[in-house]
Amino acid sequence: MTPKLDHIDTPALLLDARKLEHNCRRMRSIVHGHGVALRPHVKTAKSAEVAQVALDAPTGAITVSTLREAEYFFDHGFRDILYAVGMAPGKLRRVVDLIKRGAQVSAIVDSVEAASALARAVASSGVRIPTLIEIDSDGHRAGVQPEDARLFAIAEALGGSLQGVMTHAGDSYNCEGPEGIRAVAERERSATVRAATRLRDAGHSCDVVSVGSTPTATFAESLEGVTEVRTGVYVFQDLVMAGLGVCAVEDIALSVLGTVIGHQHEKGWIITDAGWMALSRDRGTARQKVDQGYGVVCGLEGEPIPGLIVSEANQEHGIIARRDGGAVDLARFPIGSRVRVLPNHACATAAQHGEYNVLREGQPVEVWERFNGW
Amino acid sequence: MTPKLDHIDTPALLLDARKLEHNCRRMRSIVHGHGVALRPHVKTAKSAEVAQVALDAPTGAITVSTLREAEYFFDHGFRDILYAVGMAPGKLRRVVDLIKRGAQVSAIVDSVEAASALARAVASSGVRIPTLIEIDSDGHRAGVQPEDARLFAIAEALGGSLQGVMTHAGDSYNCEGPEGIRAVAERERSATVRAATRLRDAGHSCDVVSVGSTPTATFAESLEGVTEVRTGVYVFQDLVMAGLGVCAVEDIALSVLGTVIGHQHEKGWIITDAGWMALSRDRGTARQKVDQGYGVVCGLEGEPIPGLIVSEANQEHGIIARRDGGAVDLARFPIGSRVRVLPNHACATAAQHGEYNVLREGQPVEVWERFNGW
Repeated sequence: MTPKLDHIDTPALLLDARKLEHNCRRMRSIVHGHGVALRPHVKTAKSAEVAQVALDAPTGAITVSTLREAEYFFDHGFRDILYAVGMAPGKLRRVVDLIKRGAQVSAIVDSVEAASALARAVASSGVRIPTLIEIDSDGHRAGVQPEDARLFAIAEALGGSLQGVMTHAGDSYNCEGPEGIRAVAERERSATVRAATRLRDAGHSCDVVSVGSTPTATFAESLEGVTEVRTGVYVFQDLVMAGLGVCAVEDIALSVLGTVIGHQHEKGWIITDAGWMALSRDRGTARQKVDQGYGVVCGLEGEPIPGLIVSEANQEHGIIARRDGGAVDLARFPIGSRVRVLPNHACATAAQHGEYNVLREGQPVEVWERFNGW
Repeated sequence: MTPKLDHIDTPALLLDARKLEHNCRRMRSIVHGHGVALRPHVKTAKSAEVAQVALDAPTGAITVSTLREAEYFFDHGFRDILYAVGMAPGKLRRVVDLIKRGAQVSAIVDSVEAASALARAVASSGVRIPTLIEIDSDGHRAGVQPEDARLFAIAEALGGSLQGVMTHAGDSYNCEGPEGIRAVAERERSATVRAATRLRDAGHSCDVVSVGSTPTATFAESLEGVTEVRTGVYVFQDLVMAGLGVCAVEDIALSVLGTVIGHQHEKGWIITDAGWMALSRDRGTARQKVDQGYGVVCGLEGEPIPGLIVSEANQEHGIIARRDGGAVDLARFPIGSRVRVLPNHACATAAQHGEYNVLREGQPVEVWERFNGW
C-alpha cells in the first residue's frame, strides 16, 4: 500500500519503526552475544522514544554527548548516564546538580588538569562523580595512550572517582570494509584492556572497560575484558554505514521526505524542497568507494530509485541527478510529487529536524519529538 | 576589555552587534546607491531582531526561504514577503492563509505546471498571489532561460498573478574574486532584464525585476532595469565571503564560543566542545584558495590567532590544529579556556543554534532567539 504521506508538510523526517526495531534487536543480539552490556549512545536520535526501542525497556543505561541530553533523559526517567565527551571544568556544576537530583552520571577525562578540576568539584560538593579515563586507541581524536605514564597521574588525580577506562574507535569510519574494521575493533579492545590491566596492576580499581562505535561493535571478533559497548548510529543506520558494509541500504530507518518543486530541463535535473537544511551538509560518503552525494533518492515506499542521488544541495533546494550524468526521466517526477532521501549520516540529518514522523507498515502513525542544543 | 563570556554555556553562538550593523549599513548603502530597493533574505538569521537591523526599521520588505519564516515574520509585523523557493502546489494553502490574514506574499514559479496549480488556487480561493517567474541566469539550479519560449507559456498560465521576474546568481559563490563576480552580476542583471523586456514586449506586465546574492550585490557595476536586490549572508558575512573578497575577515559578525576540553599531546592538537553540531558540516572554503577547515580560531575578543583552524570536527568535538601541520602551543590554551571560531558559512552555522548571544563592546548584552523548521 502506498504510504499516505500527503498531509505531512515537506521537507520532513520519516522514521520507519520496523527498521528501527530490527536494527536495535540486531545490535542487542550482537553485543549480548559477547556477554557484554550495551549502553546506547542517544546523541543520534535525541528522543526518549527511540532510546526505549534501543533498550527494549522504558529506561536503562545510556551514553550522552551533551549535558542537555543528560538533563532531558534524566527528566524522562533515565538514571544511568555516561557523559562521553571530555569533562570541561565549567560544566561540572551541571553534572553535580544532576547527581544531587538522583542521577548516576559518569564523566570522562584524559588529562591531569581535567581530573584535578573534577576532584576539586567532588571535594567541594560532596558528591562522587564516577569517572572513566579516555584512552586513545587509534590516534583519531582525544585520549591518553595505554602505555603513557600520564595514565597513572590521571588516576591519582581522580582518586576515589576513578571508575574505569573508555575509548571511541572513530577510525573505524575510515575503513574500507569489515576486515579493516575488525582490526580497528581489536585495537580498541586491546588498548582499553591494556590500560585497565596497567591501572589494576598499579593498585587502582577499574570496574568499567567501555568501548564503542557502530562499525567496531558490529564486527568485533572478541570483546574479552570489555564490560560495555557504546553505539549510536546503528539505531537508524545510514549510507556511510552501508558503504562500510555495516548494514544494507534496506536497513536505513531514516529518510527525508521532499516535494518536487521544479525541473531543470537543460540538465535533466529534478529540484526538490529538501536542501541541506533538511539533509545536512554531511558528505560522509565522499571518501567512500561510492559517493552518494547528499543522499540516495527513493520512492514513497522507501525503495531506492536506481541511479538517482541528490547531487547538490542549497539551503532549501535539493538537486536530484543521475549518478552517471545522464538526464533524469522528468515525466516520472511531476511537480508536486514526492520522494524520500536516505541520509549519508543519520546523526547529522536528524539534527536538522525537530521531530520524527514515525511510519509503521509504511503509514505515518505517530510523531516523536527530538531536540538539539547544549 | 576582555569579554565576560564565562557565564555562557558552551558551545554557543555569538553575534557582534557592531559588525552586524556595519554590514547592514554597507549593503543598504551599496544597493540604494544604485537607486534600487533592498529586500533582505531573512533565511540566514531567522530572527526578527536581525531583520530589523538589516532594514534599519521595525519592519519592511523581506525575502524568505520557508513558509515557517513567512509565518513567523508575519507574526512579528512584517507584511511584504517574497517566498523565494519554487512554489509547490501542496504549499499554496499556507500562502493563501497568510494572504487572507493580511500578508502580501509573493511566490515564484519556473514551470507551466506550478503556474497552473497557482492559478487554480487563486481562482478557488479568490485571493491574488503576486508571482515572479524564476529566471535561470547561470545554469546553477532552477529557473527558465530568458530566451526560452516557456517564459510566455508560464506568463499565460499565471494570468493576472504575474508580477515580474527574479533570479539567484548562485554561481557567484564559485568565483575566484571580484572580477569573476562582476561578470556573474552582469549576467544576472542582463538575463532578468532581458526576460522582463520580452514579457513586456509580448504585452505582459512585469513590475518587479528582482536579483540577488551577497557577492553580486556587492560588486555589481550596473543594476539598470533591476527593481530590487535580495541578499542574505551579508548581515553576518563569513569565511566563504571573505575568501571571495566580498568582506574582510574582521567583518564577520558571527562566531562560535567553545571550551578547550583536551590536548592531544602526540599531535599537538587542541580538542574543544565545538564540533560540527555547533559549527555545522559546511566546508564551503574547501573549494577556495585558502581552505579554512571548519573555521578560523580566534581569541576571546574575536581576533584570529595566526595559523590556527578547526581542522576536523566530530559531533561534539572540534580539533584545532595549525594550518601548517606544526604543533599548537598547548600551554596557551589550558583545559577550560575558551576560543571563538569564525564560520565557513554563516547560514549553516547559525542553523545549528537556537539563539544568538549578542555582544556589544565585546560584552554579552542580550539574547535573540532564532528558529528552524518548515
